[in-house]
This record gives sequence, structure tokens and C-alpha cells, in this order.
Amino acid sequence: MNANDKLKMPTALLSQKGSRRDFLRNTAVTALASTALAACTIDESGAQSVSQHDQDHSGGTTSPNPAPVSPAAAAEAMDKMHEAGIKTFLAGPSTQGLGNQPLAPKIENGVKIFELTCKQIDWEYDAGKQVEAWAYNGQVPGPELRVSEGDTVRVIVKNELAESTAVHFHGVIVPNKMDGVPFITQPPIKPGQSFTYEFVARNPGSHMYHAHHNSTKQVGKGLLGAFIIEPKDKRTDPAHDIEQTLILNDQLGGFTINGKGFPATAALTAKLGQKLRIRYMNEGQMIHPMHLHGLPQRVFAKDGWNLPQPFMCDTLNVAPGERWDAIVECSEAGVWAFHCHILSHAESEHGMFGMVTALIVT
Amino acid sequence: MNANDKLKMPTALLSQKGSRRDFLRNTAVTALASTALAACTIDESGAQSVSQHDQDHSGGTTSPNPAPVSPAAAAEAMDKMHEAGIKTFLAGPSTQGLGNQPLAPKIENGVKIFELTCKQIDWEYDAGKQVEAWAYNGQVPGPELRVSEGDTVRVIVKNELAESTAVHFHGVIVPNKMDGVPFITQPPIKPGQSFTYEFVARNPGSHMYHAHHNSTKQVGKGLLGAFIIEPKDKRTDPAHDIEQTLILNDQLGGFTINGKGFPATAALTAKLGQKLRIRYMNEGQMIHPMHLHGLPQRVFAKDGWNLPQPFMCDTLNVAPGERWDAIVECSEAGVWAFHCHILSHAESEHGMFGMVTALIVT
Amino acid sequence: MNANDKLKMPTALLSQKGSRRDFLRNTAVTALASTALAACTIDESGAQSVSQHDQDHSGGTTSPNPAPVSPAAAAEAMDKMHEAGIKTFLAGPSTQGLGNQPLAPKIENGVKIFELTCKQIDWEYDAGKQVEAWAYNGQVPGPELRVSEGDTVRVIVKNELAESTAVHFHGVIVPNKMDGVPFITQPPIKPGQSFTYEFVARNPGSHMYHAHHNSTKQVGKGLLGAFIIEPKDKRTDPAHDIEQTLILNDQLGGFTINGKGFPATAALTAKLGQKLRIRYMNEGQMIHPMHLHGLPQRVFAKDGWNLPQPFMCDTLNVAPGERWDAIVECSEAGVWAFHCHILSHAESEHGMFGMVTALIVT
Repeated sequence: MNANDKLKMPTALLSQKGSRRDFLRNTAVTALASTALAACTIDESGAQSVSQHDQDHSGGTTSPNPAPVSPAAAAEAMDKMHEAGIKTFLAGPSTQGLGNQPLAPKIENGVKIFELTCKQIDWEYDAGKQVEAWAYNGQVPGPELRVSEGDTVRVIVKNELAESTAVHFHGVIVPNKMDGVPFITQPPIKPGQSFTYEFVARNPGSHMYHAHHNSTKQVGKGLLGAFIIEPKDKRTDPAHDIEQTLILNDQLGGFTINGKGFPATAALTAKLGQKLRIRYMNEGQMIHPMHLHGLPQRVFAKDGWNLPQPFMCDTLNVAPGERWDAIVECSEAGVWAFHCHILSHAESEHGMFGMVTALIVT
Repeated sequence: MNANDKLKMPTALLSQKGSRRDFLRNTAVTALASTALAACTIDESGAQSVSQHDQDHSGGTTSPNPAPVSPAAAAEAMDKMHEAGIKTFLAGPSTQGLGNQPLAPKIENGVKIFELTCKQIDWEYDAGKQVEAWAYNGQVPGPELRVSEGDTVRVIVKNELAESTAVHFHGVIVPNKMDGVPFITQPPIKPGQSFTYEFVARNPGSHMYHAHHNSTKQVGKGLLGAFIIEPKDKRTDPAHDIEQTLILNDQLGGFTINGKGFPATAALTAKLGQKLRIRYMNEGQMIHPMHLHGLPQRVFAKDGWNLPQPFMCDTLNVAPGERWDAIVECSEAGVWAFHCHILSHAESEHGMFGMVTALIVT
Repeated sequence: MNANDKLKMPTALLSQKGSRRDFLRNTAVTALASTALAACTIDESGAQSVSQHDQDHSGGTTSPNPAPVSPAAAAEAMDKMHEAGIKTFLAGPSTQGLGNQPLAPKIENGVKIFELTCKQIDWEYDAGKQVEAWAYNGQVPGPELRVSEGDTVRVIVKNELAESTAVHFHGVIVPNKMDGVPFITQPPIKPGQSFTYEFVARNPGSHMYHAHHNSTKQVGKGLLGAFIIEPKDKRTDPAHDIEQTLILNDQLGGFTINGKGFPATAALTAKLGQKLRIRYMNEGQMIHPMHLHGLPQRVFAKDGWNLPQPFMCDTLNVAPGERWDAIVECSEAGVWAFHCHILSHAESEHGMFGMVTALIVT
């Protein structure tokens, strides 16, 4: 979103910058809001706790009201919180750390070489909210590895964690010994050790890489990323002007897109008339039916394989381990909400959170 | 189901009318059943509590048996409860309130005008079981809004709730400012206020409308409904004689179809040889793989968009936010059970409950 | 896997046979491992408890460490456990009882007659881990019933359980009175009684049979099996050399494939170049997106109905009640991991468990 776009927003939306927490800390309505919160059955922890969401589908828990607040004041306080989140989002991301950043390979004798270091870090998934993460090259998701069909690829994995690991190239057709399953295809990469994967990238499409040792925990803590193989014959891809990868997750930091929860998620941006390709990848443990407002999606590939015929939808159900590719024709200007339609993954009484972003067409 | 159909049922099934609770209250086996229940590990609350179901997949919890009951008597008591539920269902719905009722628009200067009032009500989702609901026009689901492709549609929303709201027309292509997302496309509709949505219905199909403010709670409490756009060219729809919308939910009142849980759900009825169109809509937070016994389903549209080619199935997985359209050829007479195949959404030791209905072909 | 294949495995993997529990009981590292376990936040119960997994997506809980263990020793102990599980798996299943075994029908006057007896048994779903099960003919899943399109089929069900039951032939088109729903299409089969189902097998494909009375519990305890109808015209099936049915479950014994949890699951085996047909069936209550490493899947049928066009994938999301058929071309030799990609259904800090197997191509 550029400065021009911001001018199109109601000025009030942009006059105050910062997280919802800043909002509560700094504004005159804090006292009111704090009181109203109790009345409003709000559960701040909802954004972080998967199990609490599973148990509380009505979106909050009731607390006794310590002081009487008028319903109108409570409603107003709730609206202010919703507004603050949206203002923070529209102002653009301001958290530390960006995941899924392209990693340029070194090229030696025609081999594309990537180096991944596994290491514990602190990851800020929303403003002021940090969690211990296990990351590739300090990013959650790890850096995007992108090659072309037919490339020889070498990935050198260095393990600086306190436990063993291994990398599986999910969806990529590799020789068995490069498949990344300890005690089946290789020994585990012990702490302090390295392992080199090498293979020819044979099947184009949207794939992933992630830990395949103690994987519920290791992937859950952030050892995951996108592995994209561009087709030799570009005509096998439908025409598009821009693209965006959306890595869905429900582990580290709760519900996230590309490692961040709303309002720290990055908006997708496009110019009117552009064709946007979206690469959905689910690295979590739950389905996420992704709903884009306003602009239908033409789904053309599953797990990197082109479908025999594309189909249209507005809500695309992405299951763990799946990848789907879709084209959105950005034919209407505006800020189009884009979120998981399991509503408890996307909104609490505090406002939108978690698995929410927007496609901004200008 | 008409009186004639009922005559085809075993007489015993129809001799006693009423809910399972009535059954327990009024019949001679009450004492026996009550004792047997403890032995049978039955959990009455199962039907209402989503989180308990998530935690107890075996369908019940074991309680100490206060008095010895023979296994045969316990089995008999269980069967009686199952039978009572089915009798109640086959006798036809007798709860207060019907959701998803067609709302005739006012027409002014060619514009189809609908008025929706958001208000708190009590909703009876099963006989004698009421919950506080937030409803459009006193119905859960809200009234069906049905227009034709190309119509100019105006929806006037009046908010009589204690908190703000907004309406999103899910799946309907609208101008951005009519998209219903507070602080992005409009201000919230505050308590006592109204907001008017107006747009041209461009994309035919099975769509929805629901709250998009504090939506986990507001949709969870009932602010949802069907929005159907009939195509200008009727030939784009496959041939069918009758149709039925099934709005699936797992929030208000537990597992429901069109706002009611079995045995209060309405049966679908068709005459032998008719083609039935089913419009599935999921307004809940879980998938619901809907299984129709006996008669296969030909699925032809997703989210209102015709598939490139229909596919056949007997179990259709519907994710939150999705809509699917299918044709059932009613080629075999009988009462065909029709239920979510996550069995804990459909049956407990007390008998069938929740997301269960039947297609009765006569 | 034959002896020859085993020779291709690292010798160390095969030198010790037995379950992970045996491993812990019998080897020199037991003391170290036991101590390290506490440090490693390992939760043995994870494999058995669905609800704990739902609540603890990070894969374990932290216990206080009774004695200091170096991180290296803890990592080593964890790896040993992972290795032990894989060794046990590769050595081949050694648990008592095999489900899904073909049941040869008696043939009288051209009618294929199967007898199913429902009875309580103990079922060993992993080495040394037994649960009370309710089974058809002492198997979980029950025996595979396989007939040809056009066959007249008779299934005699004898109920030796302490409660009533009934059998629904899920996906099979039957006359209404053979549909298996007590109080709708038949009386329940009371303890000690029998019921005879008879119908002509009309629609070919991968179907199922299971209890349809108190079904959350009865199916949950094991009353389920495969019902396969081979097409009259074999050309309607895509070419394949071998086939394997995979019945997915998340109830009895936790996460299982064909009634067993890893490492007690049976490997799939194929010779290089063979075409393997997989029949997926979900008899559980959760989705299971099944990910096969290395070899893509060509999905050609849903619920027994051929798709208009097959599609390719590596992760196939199977919802409760669904069946999917896929072809895998075994074009690369090796041991290819094959598991549910909801990682908490497949791996804990103790190693892989539950819904994991492998396709071994030799």
C-alpha cells in the first residue's frame, strides 16, 4: 500500500498508529475499555491458544463485571478495539522479522546451492508478542527456495539446535536417499552436524520443505518453508502478473499467515486489472478454508500438479500438507478482506486477529 | 410427509408423539431407563456441547452404576430412546420457530428491497430446548433472500442488538463499499442504527449473508442466512423438480440443520422420480461430510460456480464458508437417513441427535 | 518385505527386534533414556489420547527434570527412540490379530453369503497395547467383503454384544429395507438375535459397512469394515497390478491404519514399475490428509464413482465417510514414508506413531 492508497482511507483510520495493545495503553478510552472488556466477555488469550479456541466456540468467556458499564459504552469500547486493529494493519506491518524471503542460491558448476541453518530464535508474530521459535536462517517461515525445473539443487542443512533434525522436501520428487526421513533414508542430523541434500528438480509447482524428525514439535516451532519449482515451459502456468505465497499455520504464535497474525500480517497488493497468482500452503494441523471477499478465485493446481480443468470458488479449503494454486483477477478496486472462514481463527471480541489479511486493489 | 406416508411406517413408531425428554418423563420405562442410563455411559449434554464432543470421541462418559440393571434391560432402554427420537422426527417438527423462510421483497422502481432486523430472541432448536440467539427477523437461520441475476437489490439492516454489527454478503460480488467489513468498507452499524446495502446481483448461485463484526460470536449466535441468486439463463442450472437448502451449523444449539437439531429437523420430501437440488451451506466452524443413504449425489457447483464437470458421491465434505450444489435423483422410495458422517455430530447413546435428517421418497 | 529387502537396510536398523517398549526395557541406554525423557518433554500417552493431542499441538508437555542430563544425551536418547520404532516397523508386524482379511463367501444358488458375528474382543493395536473392541468376526477392521457387480449378496449378522446393533452398507445402493437404520428401515438386532441383509450389488467401487445403531460408540469401538464391489466391466478401472485398502481411524487405539498404529502398521509393498491401487476409507471422526512421499498419486474415484477426470496429488484429504481411489506408479525404489499430514496424528517426541506406514518399492 503506498501513501496514495492511504489517503483513500478515512483519515480517522490512519491518525493513530500502533498495535491494539498500544491503543489500550495510550488513549483516553483505556479506562473505559478496560472496564468494558470485563463486561464484554473478552478473552485476550484467544489469539494464542488453539485449545482454548477449540473449547470455546462462542468466542469468549464471561467474567463477572467488576463495575457497571452501560451497554452503549461497552459496544463503543468493542468497536474501538476492532478499529484499532484495522488501523494497525492498514498502516503496514511493523513487527520485527519477515519470513518467506527469497534466498538467492550460490551457483557452482551449474548447481544451485542453498544453505539453511536451524537455530532457536525469538519470533515476533504480532506487535510485542514474541515466542521461542526454531527457524531456518532466522525466518518463520524459512526462506523461500525457488528453482527451475531441471535444475540440480543442493541444500546444505546445518543443525544448531539442541536436538537432531532432518529436512523433507514435501511434494518434490527426489531420490529415496534425499527424502529426509531419519533411520529410513538417512541418519538424523545431530546437533552441530550438517547434511547435504542434492537432487534434480523434476516436478514443477508449489512445494514445501520442513523438518521430518520430531516433526510435530519441530514444524510446530517453525522449521518449515516454501520450495517452488518453476516450470521449464512457462505456458503450463496460467497467465498472471504477480504472485503471492500464503503459508497457513496454526501452531507457532497461534493462527498465522506467513508467520504473522493479524494485524501484523502483510496485505496483498495489486493494481486494478492485474492477475494475481496465489500459492496456498498449509503447514499447520487444521484445515483452513480461505475466503477472499469480492473477487472469485480460479483454482488451477493442487500440490503442484495442474488440475485437468480449473474450478472457481470464493472459499478454498486447504488441508494440512496441501498446496493449491489459484488466479484472482483484480477487477474491482478496494480493500478486500481475506481470511480463514473458521471464524474463531480470525476474529474475537477484541477484533480481527490471526488468520486475516486483505487484498488491496488500487 | 403426508398422512399416507405415515401409514406406511410401523404403527408402533407413530403411536407416541413427543420429544425424547417427553418420552423419559411420561412412559413406564422411565425409572428403568434412568437407572440404565447411568450404566450405559450416556451423556445427555453431548448434543449441546461441542467441546465435550471434541474431547470425548467414544461418545460418552462412564458414571458409577447406582443400582444393578441387567444388560438386557439396559439394551432395551437404550433402544427405546433411539426409537422415541425417530418417532418424534417422523411425526414432523413441532418446535417453535422456523428459520430460512422466504422473505418477499418490496419492489420500488424495480429495486428489490429486503429489511432485516437484528434482535435477541429465544430460539428453540429442539423440543423444549431454548437458547438465547441473535437473529435476523426472529429466525435462525435468517430469512432466505432470493433474487435474480441482474436485479438491483437493497437490504436495509436495522440493529436492535446491544452491540454494533454489519452484514457481509458471502460469495456475492458487490462493490467494495457494500462488502460489510466495519472500519474497512463501512462504519459499524451501532445499536439503534440502520445501514442500507445496495448492489446489482451479478453472480448467480447459492450464497450466504452473515454478520462480519465480532463475527465468531455474532454468527455463532445466529446472524446468518441464505442469499440465492437465480441465473438469468435457467439452462445453466441442471434440470431439477424441487430444491432444498441445508444450512449446516455447529454453534447455536450444537449441531443443527436449518437451525434445528434432530429430532426437530425437518425431513426432506420428494416424489419417486423427482430430481432434488440440494444447496449445502456451512455457517459453522467445523467440516461436515454429509452422507445421504441410498441415493447418490451429483455435485455440480461450488460456491455458486458451476464445476467444469459434475462429480458423483455419497458423502460430501462441506467446509466452513463453502456452498455446494448437488442433484439427487429420487429413484428409490423409502425413508433415507441423511446425516453428518462425523458420527459424534449425529448420534449418542440416547439416539440420533444434531445433524441428522432424512430424505423421504414416496 | 522379504529377507532380501531387509538386507538392503542398514544392519544396525535390524539388529534388534521388538517394540519401543522392549527397547526401553532391554537395552543399555534405558537408564539414560528414562532420565532424558523427563528432560525431553515426552508424553507417552500422546499416541493413545486424541483429546490430549487436540489440546497440545506443540507435541508434548514439560515435566520437571529430576536429574540433570546434557542436551546431547537427551537428543541421543530421543533419536534412539525414533530409531527403535522404525526398526520395529521394518522388521514387520508382530502384533496379535489382523483386520481387513478377505472373507470367502459361501455360495448357495448363486447367492454370495457372508456371516458376520459382532462380539467383544481384546484388540492389540500396537505391541503390548490392547483395548476392548467390538468386532466383526474378531477383526478390526472387520473382514473385507468383496463381490462383483450384479451379484446377489446375503449378509447374516449375528449379534453377540450386550446391546442392539444394525449394519449399514455405506455407499452401497440397496433397497430401503436393507439400509440398516433401526426404527426407520428395520428393528434393531437385539443381543442374541440375527438379521439377514440381502441385495443385488449394483454400484461398483470402494464402499464400507459399519454399525448404524449407537454408532458413535459402536463404530468407534471397531464395528466397521470394507465392502468392495468389483465392476462387471473391468475396463472401467484404470490399469493396476496390485491393490491395497487403507482404512483410516482415529477412535479405537488412537490413530490407526487397518486397525494398527505405527510401528505395528503393515508396510505396503510393490515391485519397481508396478501400478498400485490404493482404496482409502475413513471410518474415523477427523479428516486425514494422507501424504505419500516420493511417488505422486493419481486420484480417479470418489465414493466408488469414477471422477470425470483423474487429478494428481501427493496429499489426499480424506474426510469421515469418504472413500477415494488412487493409482501410484512405483517408479522409484526405496522405502517411502506414508502418513497423515496432521503431524500430531503421526509423530511425537517418542518417534513416529499412529497413522504412519511406508510404501516399500523393491
